[in-house]
Amino acid sequence: MSFDEAKNVIQQQIKPEPLGEEEIPLLETHNRVLTQDITSSLDIPPFNRSTVDGYAVKAEDTYGAEENTPAKLKVCGTVNVGEPPQIHIKKGEAAEIVTGAPIPEGADACVMIENTERNGEELLVYRAVTKNENVMKKGSDIRTGETVLKAGTILRSSEIGVLAALGYTKAKVFKVPVVAVLSTGAEVTEPGKKLPPGKIYDINTYSLSAAVLEAGGKPVYMGVVPDDKTHLRKALERALSSADMVVTSGGVSVGPHDLMPQTVDSLGKPGLIVCGIAVKPGKPTTVALVGRKPVFSMPGHPTSALLLFHLLARPIIQGFAGRPVTGTPVVKAVAGARMFSAKGRRTFVMVRLNRDKSGRLMAEPVETGASGAITTLAKADGFVEVPENEQFIDAGEDVAVSLLKGA
Amino acid sequence: MSFDEAKNVIQQQIKPEPLGEEEIPLLETHNRVLTQDITSSLDIPPFNRSTVDGYAVKAEDTYGAEENTPAKLKVCGTVNVGEPPQIHIKKGEAAEIVTGAPIPEGADACVMIENTERNGEELLVYRAVTKNENVMKKGSDIRTGETVLKAGTILRSSEIGVLAALGYTKAKVFKVPVVAVLSTGAEVTEPGKKLPPGKIYDINTYSLSAAVLEAGGKPVYMGVVPDDKTHLRKALERALSSADMVVTSGGVSVGPHDLMPQTVDSLGKPGLIVCGIAVKPGKPTTVALVGRKPVFSMPGHPTSALLLFHLLARPIIQGFAGRPVTGTPVVKAVAGARMFSAKGRRTFVMVRLNRDKSGRLMAEPVETGASGAITTLAKADGFVEVPENEQFIDAGEDVAVSLLKGA
Repeated sequence: MSFDEAKNVIQQQIKPEPLGEEEIPLLETHNRVLTQDITSSLDIPPFNRSTVDGYAVKAEDTYGAEENTPAKLKVCGTVNVGEPPQIHIKKGEAAEIVTGAPIPEGADACVMIENTERNGEELLVYRAVTKNENVMKKGSDIRTGETVLKAGTILRSSEIGVLAALGYTKAKVFKVPVVAVLSTGAEVTEPGKKLPPGKIYDINTYSLSAAVLEAGGKPVYMGVVPDDKTHLRKALERALSSADMVVTSGGVSVGPHDLMPQTVDSLGKPGLIVCGIAVKPGKPTTVALVGRKPVFSMPGHPTSALLLFHLLARPIIQGFAGRPVTGTPVVKAVAGARMFSAKGRRTFVMVRLNRDKSGRLMAEPVETGASGAITTLAKADGFVEVPENEQFIDAGEDVAVSLLKGA
Repeated sequence: MSFDEAKNVIQQQIKPEPLGEEEIPLLETHNRVLTQDITSSLDIPPFNRSTVDGYAVKAEDTYGAEENTPAKLKVCGTVNVGEPPQIHIKKGEAAEIVTGAPIPEGADACVMIENTERNGEELLVYRAVTKNENVMKKGSDIRTGETVLKAGTILRSSEIGVLAALGYTKAKVFKVPVVAVLSTGAEVTEPGKKLPPGKIYDINTYSLSAAVLEAGGKPVYMGVVPDDKTHLRKALERALSSADMVVTSGGVSVGPHDLMPQTVDSLGKPGLIVCGIAVKPGKPTTVALVGRKPVFSMPGHPTSALLLFHLLARPIIQGFAGRPVTGTPVVKAVAGARMFSAKGRRTFVMVRLNRDKSGRLMAEPVETGASGAITTLAKADGFVEVPENEQFIDAGEDVAVSLLKGA
């Protein structure tokens, strides 16, 4: 199956719809996704407010006021901030007011304190104001009934501020998809213990769990599962019962002991939907669907596992989370060396980005040794796709680098 | 005090050093910062590994092997993956092997199963291999003693994978700075209750808490504190005793009831270090230092509070967290309208980014009405700086837009 065919099958069969909503405290909504449009049930500001410290007046009482011919008004009281005003301004009157306080009845503008002089009850105004000057009108920021945030919005500091302004202390957001992550393979052992001869530490449960977080999911650590049918089946059943999706690694190559595909396929219908993909690396990747729950089985090689996760599993997690499905961010660069494609397979070349002397951004292939190299993960900034119908991309050609870091 | 002076004073007096380290489980280290270089205590791979399924051989036994003249070898056993090999390969012998399994003693290469034919104990090899072909040498990925990650690295999926590879289940990371966030002002009331006349809902505790998270801190919600000296003092003392830093908003304008600066200054030495800044908006912003703990007092206007937080408080939180101090990301755009500066004050114009018909990225000023407008927060993508010594930036000029979203 070609890479594009595999992507199509996954997209069509899995149809990643949001998994549902939950209502959580506003203070915990950062980076979550709104499930519904937010329509204001109040005017903001809820009353005409002064935007300055000074005096609330009838604008017409100040007309013609200048440095040499101040308007003379009578101070009839004070409007406190945070309280409904008890004052009614009549012709020739003014009320002391501070920023944010409600404009009292009868007044339609505010003069700034800098443009006044006060002697007891007498106020001299040295600058005329127009109607509504220094007043923020009721509803001028948000009107009752106005839609201020759309369903699907990712909540950040500004949007959370808007929800607070409307009086919300909770918000309805999409559920976070729970993704069980496990590794298998007789050579893999959990870190933290002394390394037995012939074994290597499990990397993928850790790197894939972090990648699940980065995609907007909640990883559930299931560790290393022994490479036999009984254990694997039990672990997968447990994973499927507690999670919305499963990501495994290891046990999918063509070796004689690779039970993963057959075990996954036996767990329920429709079973395997992708069994091997014409890509390099990552050829033995399989994808199954058990009921509505996808199981992605990645190769054991850490770089391949993380790469195929980004290419195939990440968009599904984003869909389940109600998030926009974003590809990895892409930057343009120049190939620093010739990059070969594997015959008939879409090839992904891990590259590191460097600026050359003339300031060009160069994509330098990272020496992977074998695809099992772990340091490739830490050294590479992203990857370049070489199409299956091309022999190579030559040094000096323009390439698009898909960034894996901070993605 | 000019904006640049204020920034200098803050940088010099606060000197934001990391607050210390803690050791946490590897699965929880995502997006945290390493406190020390990580040096490998083992070779990776820890043994010579096969990179293919096939047979481990002495390379010289295959020299000259071709389609018509296969080399004939004797299969002397099987090497299992995950176990130390019990076999010693002698001249003319081969051992069955799978990907990832250790190369047995005496062998120095592997032939791929595709290039062989097996009849009982007899193996025909149709393609010669060179020494080390299809073998990943011990230590070829990471050598014992090699530094693989540097102190200060932010841990993402790849780096967490590298730590797991080395056997770590915990990592030492910088502590997350705890930032107490409170609002004050007689007009402000907590959301979730019916809005009393003359009041508005508290926005800033929510938006600033989210901004603290985005900067790498842990916000502590302290809500709305009544605008009187006793309550304010008590709240600030509580904030300072439980947090590494305090961010307040409201109560700093020139109104008669603004107690914030004087209260903060009375809490301890050195006290106020910045008292008002020649910026627009955000002029009344003050910064104090109580012992080693900074108190940032932002204006009550939501847009000003968030803007000044980004400009001044965010870098301090990043420093305390041991994170690289990043400015907000900047994109180049074209001014969509004339942007005026306030006389002698560094002016920050909130803008929204749009592409015009010819594809140019345009920075359109967001109508803020008054600086209290809440929707400005949700509508603006970032801001443009207008220098204090310029009257305006004209429509059509190139501008740098500092992005607030996703920052």
